Amino acid sequence: MNLKELIINNPERHPERLNATYERIEEVIGLVFNKKESAEVLKKCKELVEIRNDRDELTESQGEKIANILTEFIPQDKIEEVKNLLMGAEIGTNEAIQLHEEFKIPVSHLEKDIVPVTGDGVWITTTKGERYLDLDSNYSAANLGFKNDEIALGLFNQAGQLISVKEDRVQIPRTRFLKVIHQLMPEGLTQFYWQNSGGEAVDKALKIAKAYTKQRGVIAMENGFHGRTHGAVSITYNKYYREPFGLDHEEWVHFVPFNKIEPIKEILSSGKARIVILELIQGEEAGNTPALPDFPRALRELCDKYNALLICDEVQTGFGRVAIREDEWWASQVYGVAPDIMVIGKSFGGGFPVTAVVTKKEVSEKMKPGYDGSTFGGNPMAMTSAFIAVRQMQRKNITLNVVLRSKQFFEGLHNIGSPLIKEIRGLGLMIGIKLPSKEYVSQFQEELKNCKIKSSLSTGNIARFLPPLIISEEEVDFALNRIELALKRLK
Amino acid sequence: MNLKELIINNPERHPERLNATYERIEEVIGLVFNKKESAEVLKKCKELVEIRNDRDELTESQGEKIANILTEFIPQDKIEEVKNLLMGAEIGTNEAIQLHEEFKIPVSHLEKDIVPVTGDGVWITTTKGERYLDLDSNYSAANLGFKNDEIALGLFNQAGQLISVKEDRVQIPRTRFLKVIHQLMPEGLTQFYWQNSGGEAVDKALKIAKAYTKQRGVIAMENGFHGRTHGAVSITYNKYYREPFGLDHEEWVHFVPFNKIEPIKEILSSGKARIVILELIQGEEAGNTPALPDFPRALRELCDKYNALLICDEVQTGFGRVAIREDEWWASQVYGVAPDIMVIGKSFGGGFPVTAVVTKKEVSEKMKPGYDGSTFGGNPMAMTSAFIAVRQMQRKNITLNVVLRSKQFFEGLHNIGSPLIKEIRGLGLMIGIKLPSKEYVSQFQEELKNCKIKSSLSTGNIARFLPPLIISEEEVDFALNRIELALKRLK
Repeated sequence: MNLKELIINNPERHPERLNATYERIEEVIGLVFNKKESAEVLKKCKELVEIRNDRDELTESQGEKIANILTEFIPQDKIEEVKNLLMGAEIGTNEAIQLHEEFKIPVSHLEKDIVPVTGDGVWITTTKGERYLDLDSNYSAANLGFKNDEIALGLFNQAGQLISVKEDRVQIPRTRFLKVIHQLMPEGLTQFYWQNSGGEAVDKALKIAKAYTKQRGVIAMENGFHGRTHGAVSITYNKYYREPFGLDHEEWVHFVPFNKIEPIKEILSSGKARIVILELIQGEEAGNTPALPDFPRALRELCDKYNALLICDEVQTGFGRVAIREDEWWASQVYGVAPDIMVIGKSFGGGFPVTAVVTKKEVSEKMKPGYDGSTFGGNPMAMTSAFIAVRQMQRKNITLNVVLRSKQFFEGLHNIGSPLIKEIRGLGLMIGIKLPSKEYVSQFQEELKNCKIKSSLSTGNIARFLPPLIISEEEVDFALNRIELALKRLK
Repeated sequence: MNLKELIINNPERHPERLNATYERIEEVIGLVFNKKESAEVLKKCKELVEIRNDRDELTESQGEKIANILTEFIPQDKIEEVKNLLMGAEIGTNEAIQLHEEFKIPVSHLEKDIVPVTGDGVWITTTKGERYLDLDSNYSAANLGFKNDEIALGLFNQAGQLISVKEDRVQIPRTRFLKVIHQLMPEGLTQFYWQNSGGEAVDKALKIAKAYTKQRGVIAMENGFHGRTHGAVSITYNKYYREPFGLDHEEWVHFVPFNKIEPIKEILSSGKARIVILELIQGEEAGNTPALPDFPRALRELCDKYNALLICDEVQTGFGRVAIREDEWWASQVYGVAPDIMVIGKSFGGGFPVTAVVTKKEVSEKMKPGYDGSTFGGNPMAMTSAFIAVRQMQRKNITLNVVLRSKQFFEGLHNIGSPLIKEIRGLGLMIGIKLPSKEYVSQFQEELKNCKIKSSLSTGNIARFLPPLIISEEEVDFALNRIELALKRLK
């Protein structure tokens, strides 16, 4: 796009954009030029163009005048920088932040330190043109990176052909994806129910399990995290997530310590529950703590003995995130256990919201027509994204990359040998380091940001790393180098 | 695309497609040519090409041979038809159906009578090249039609720039959408929490309301439908949806008759609940039954008196579906009531899974950071779709179209004057007709399908129509004409 098109948007080419605001023009000029130069060109703009409100979309005539002034003013070697910044955003950073503050229900701390506008592999670039290597990967939703040209094209084709189909209809994009995904699942897990978010899929997994066991009881782990709907949050350990909604005394939920067999045995043998759910590597609430090696298999045996269903929540761990050998797509595979129900999500949409409950024929048969329903479940757009994303993972041999980069990452962390690192934990590319305190973690993440690493996940005094699974050897080296540097800067 | 590209897919242009199967080639030839012709060409294919499994993707060399044979055989006037069928699907209808039967958890009756592959406004075309006018619009998710070139382009641009961002970050696509959507909401409803499915948004609306009232109690309507997560299904009246999961005795849920004030007053005054949720036009479970004219306002007064929150579930009714005057975007506007919380969904993603809880500042302030969270909530792709879809609705003056087409539809139904129509009900383009029995409804829908109308929604003996909101005058005439015809054919 030329400069003018970046100011006066052509909606036929960019229906997703607006005209630029004057505020954004000012911001971009301020970013590219020094104070004196900026003042000069902005003065000229204000002289020739009447602006009522800096945050209004520029009109065509305003935009044209400004484009002309800028074209005249900006030297050739700076023009690409200006264009990239405007391409990233036609709206000013402050306006974006303010609108989020004004209109967003504050369910979480608004992260307004940087505003990412462009992705490129594991890198994100902000409204200010700063580039960061991202170690969060949106909790695994960006495992294939922050932009995806192939998914872009697939969605373009699909939306231009058929954008919406009823969930209970047969459709081709879902057929294509079924052909790919069923081959990737552990043996016996052949029955799929597509959903849109991880919490929703966990919620439905519980329903399917309850329909099978014909009782409500569920055993969940201390420090487990499963999502936020009434069903999912009730089995999530952190009381802070449940108490405000009166979901902290659900009689059907039994919390037990992670990695301990006896308490589970007690409940199963009492008959109070016949469903067990866990993350094999506890993420969110336990700072990426893997199950002890023998626990999952002992749990599986126990479930068999009491005819209970074992649900593995692999929303974060699935699709290679925790591979320690090539072709290990699931945490349950890593531990050598076969769940009765698996919940999958995040990674496999390549960024698109799509998740699923996957179970055995025997379990799924207890669901009858009408027992559930979903307008968007497995819609053609979601299935198209998922089809392309999973084939990308296979083509890129993503599990092998995880194995190699994980080894490199863990070895590198050990080699740093910082006295501040009290513990290194995790599996695959789900990594945590324990620092002396929560405050150290905040400072550490701040220092990382200063050296161009965005890492914002933490649990208490544990900093968590969840890099996109496509991260390269050089990028892991870069990350390790900066982690070392950031640790050194901590006092 | 030329014929060869439709058989041997070029993944650089169509990453969402596979190579055709021989089964699909056979099916397409069978659809376009008579038996003798088909047999002749297929014989030739089988002679020259060795096919091991009819459902394998054709290899490049197999595909090339078949493309050559077909090019030689198919006369010019038939080539477009063959190409359209292959463009619609490279996989055979039977395989698509079989894979759905084999791998899909049977939460609903699989609708396998037709397999839609291409959309065009209110029309869908199937794997067999049959074209139907659709009166379901996927429950309102396809209100803007079954394909959308503008959304296709917007998503292409966005996925190629930034496909994924953490929910708690500031981002530009969400900023753009906020600028549009906040102007459309009823006064005071300024706080948004983006979700992915309607049930999930209802579930979160309940959480937000509970955090505000500091008690769990919820009053819900008999014959109401709100979705399927633990929270949403617990307040959904149909016991069949709750019983299998042990969600039929939730002590916090109080069902009351729709349209009756006294029972609600009793519960509110007892202090057992301070949250009321309803659909102003009951859809799914009540066959599109509007609230009586005075009920919503009386309910609003009652909620004010007892300091209770009124939640309107406008997932199906919102975005003009039930407009009776131009610019009526919400059912609550039609009834002249102001909800404290509104749940919106389906329509505004233009097919993309995106929904929201919208509430007042006073209510939203009771949510604290960490109270909720969402990986995909308001992701840049969803916000891009929503931005484009809502601007399309505005540009097309969709509420006016609903007003005009609704008048035409209702008048037309009355004019049919069939003795089989026992009642005509609804509002806007949310329409129901009562027939003598459930069996009549099935036969009626079957006859409609025979005359190229796809209408599959029903509640008992009520056939429900929910046409896409972009339906034209001619298309409503066509629908009415076929409805009359179908009714005449019923015995």
